[in-house]
Amino acid sequence: MTLADTPVDSTLLTPEVRRTRTTMADGRDLFYFDDSAPYVAGDATRRLDDPRPLPDRFAPVVGADGVARPVTGPELRRDPLTGDWIPMAAHRMNRTFLPPADANPLAPARPGAAYSDGEIPDTDYDVVVFENRFPSLMAVPGVEDVVTLSGGEELWPSRPAAGRCEVICFSSDPTASLGTVSPRRMRTIVEAWADRTRALGEVPGIEQVFAFENRGKEIGVTLHHPHGQIYAFPYLTPRTQAMLGQARAHAERTGRLLGRDVLDAELRHGARVVLESEHWVAYVPFAARWPVEVHLAPRRDVPDLPALTDAERADLAVTYLELLRRLDRFFVDPDSGAPIPLPYISGWHQAPVREGRDLSRLHLQVFSVLRAPGKLKYLAGVESAMAAWISDTTPERIAARLQEVAR
Amino acid sequence: MTLADTPVDSTLLTPEVRRTRTTMADGRDLFYFDDSAPYVAGDATRRLDDPRPLPDRFAPVVGADGVARPVTGPELRRDPLTGDWIPMAAHRMNRTFLPPADANPLAPARPGAAYSDGEIPDTDYDVVVFENRFPSLMAVPGVEDVVTLSGGEELWPSRPAAGRCEVICFSSDPTASLGTVSPRRMRTIVEAWADRTRALGEVPGIEQVFAFENRGKEIGVTLHHPHGQIYAFPYLTPRTQAMLGQARAHAERTGRLLGRDVLDAELRHGARVVLESEHWVAYVPFAARWPVEVHLAPRRDVPDLPALTDAERADLAVTYLELLRRLDRFFVDPDSGAPIPLPYISGWHQAPVREGRDLSRLHLQVFSVLRAPGKLKYLAGVESAMAAWISDTTPERIAARLQEVAR
Repeated sequence: MTLADTPVDSTLLTPEVRRTRTTMADGRDLFYFDDSAPYVAGDATRRLDDPRPLPDRFAPVVGADGVARPVTGPELRRDPLTGDWIPMAAHRMNRTFLPPADANPLAPARPGAAYSDGEIPDTDYDVVVFENRFPSLMAVPGVEDVVTLSGGEELWPSRPAAGRCEVICFSSDPTASLGTVSPRRMRTIVEAWADRTRALGEVPGIEQVFAFENRGKEIGVTLHHPHGQIYAFPYLTPRTQAMLGQARAHAERTGRLLGRDVLDAELRHGARVVLESEHWVAYVPFAARWPVEVHLAPRRDVPDLPALTDAERADLAVTYLELLRRLDRFFVDPDSGAPIPLPYISGWHQAPVREGRDLSRLHLQVFSVLRAPGKLKYLAGVESAMAAWISDTTPERIAARLQEVAR
Repeated sequence: MTLADTPVDSTLLTPEVRRTRTTMADGRDLFYFDDSAPYVAGDATRRLDDPRPLPDRFAPVVGADGVARPVTGPELRRDPLTGDWIPMAAHRMNRTFLPPADANPLAPARPGAAYSDGEIPDTDYDVVVFENRFPSLMAVPGVEDVVTLSGGEELWPSRPAAGRCEVICFSSDPTASLGTVSPRRMRTIVEAWADRTRALGEVPGIEQVFAFENRGKEIGVTLHHPHGQIYAFPYLTPRTQAMLGQARAHAERTGRLLGRDVLDAELRHGARVVLESEHWVAYVPFAARWPVEVHLAPRRDVPDLPALTDAERADLAVTYLELLRRLDRFFVDPDSGAPIPLPYISGWHQAPVREGRDLSRLHLQVFSVLRAPGKLKYLAGVESAMAAWISDTTPERIAARLQEVAR
């Protein structure tokens, strides 16, 4: 199937941002989010043909014994000791497509080329979202989402890991970063996150949508093109479950929303507040556990990104950029005095799709494993075996530094 | 205070293993566990004086303003979003003692020297346990263990991180590793773990004792002398809380012990059982989340290491060594064919001191972040922000490899 065969729906998400839906050669969804007219990507007249001989993701797999077996996709197993669902994505080890080390699969196609060796079949784009080719979570057509007991054991429930993993490219420029895009571009990225959150939340079986960015080789990122990821989980993650449990207990005790009270307490004292705008507040939380950690929350009680108003989204674009600029000034090279681009993880905590929406409050958590220039916090026995975090600093020191680098 | 001033209590923990208690120059506890007569460490006639001018850990600290303030020790803050207690160990950043990069503070003192620049004031030892000089958890004399509300906020409870962090050296040989010690030595190490678990569990305020080993530069270990750590937490760690919650629900539903039923299910099916001895079973659990993971559990229902019989301890020494030998054959260098010493985390899940002892069952969890030669599993957005684990392999593949390398 080539792109010419696939339907395209174009829509304006705001007066400016246009979303164009299309399909990749192997049937994966791809969405262009373009800043403003003239739109750069996805026009039927400009689209490239995508003749890559990508295998059908759902075709039966022929085993060593010559027998073809239907693809079942990744499996979810429930850990009897903790209750956590663990996706088993062993199929990812059988990757057939391995780009050369110097290739960038997120770059736009070369102008004039009929064929792109990357993932994006157009010669330019503003923001693009597409399904990950080797996802940890994937719904396979025809595979029913039911729990079975492995080996007939009550303690071994299993079901398909029927979620979805998407990639979001923040810019077609491989040398850019999220912190260096324009406010207009950041506004488009917010639009894309909100749109995907809404759309993935409507997929049957999806319980939670998580948009996040991993940046830096220190956390294993090998592809430096500016991009993030969006996971649609068919279960609630352990962190979200823990937060819902605390929010529920708080609501039962006080009748109030925990996230609201947390923000109000930080605003009341102010010492750890690092940035305030009309609609947003950034603060280092009372019990920050990472060497660098900051939360960004809206002033209004909002469950998720789709619930933000246009004004809140526009303000977020500017505020998030300022926060990222400060994080990139947090550490300084002791020899040269130059700021050190911070390796970081940035993730949106949103209300689950169904459960506990009235208990949840949107916030962004940005944190780093860098504790000093050249020194990492490693997640060893205490963190990895016991899920117990220990901070080697204090939230007040982190906040003081983020206030200091305001300019 | 020098060692000559400190009391020594010697005791035989078994017919062979002698424990000698002494005190370091700054008052920290140190315990020698010696294999058998003639005992190599801690005799009054052989002990070295320890004249290092170590500062009193609890002396008031003079600030930049010239005012002396009492040491308060690390602080525990409760994260309102998750309910987790987070120790704030910022005092560790003010380390006064930084050994040269090529020094080994865990080596025994040089024979004939009156002064050790390491931590252990004797010229030899079998196994030694001592208080960490810069602990994340520390009880400060005179500081009362009570909860206060920071800034008067209900959401910001705080209390002293009044626990304890100990170091255990497995051998005086800096080139050894836990997997290469003799069975007799491993038996002594088991004795030391059990003794410290019992003793730390009797300290007021301690809720949980965690003995573990981090091995390998891949998880941040910079000191290659074979050693582990023992943490005495004044709270239940999140993983232990999660396991207690599952065990409680299982007991309410079935009347049975979860850990027992998990082991029985693995034994009933057998495919993931990798090692069986008279008293112990090693298996890859149904929902293993790490690239390499194996659990080692006693056949008898036992809450913690002190509850093991002599026969179980002796068998454990042999069985644990066999398991470590197999783990060091798990991956092979693709060029040379040589086995790759596995970076690993190994931790004992023991019953808490008070809560849920009847719901807990002792087991060792050993796991690695190495997913292939030269390739690490990084804990990025999904794991670190959402506490959601995804396996890129299957427990059956891990088990098959651990069976294969049995020889």
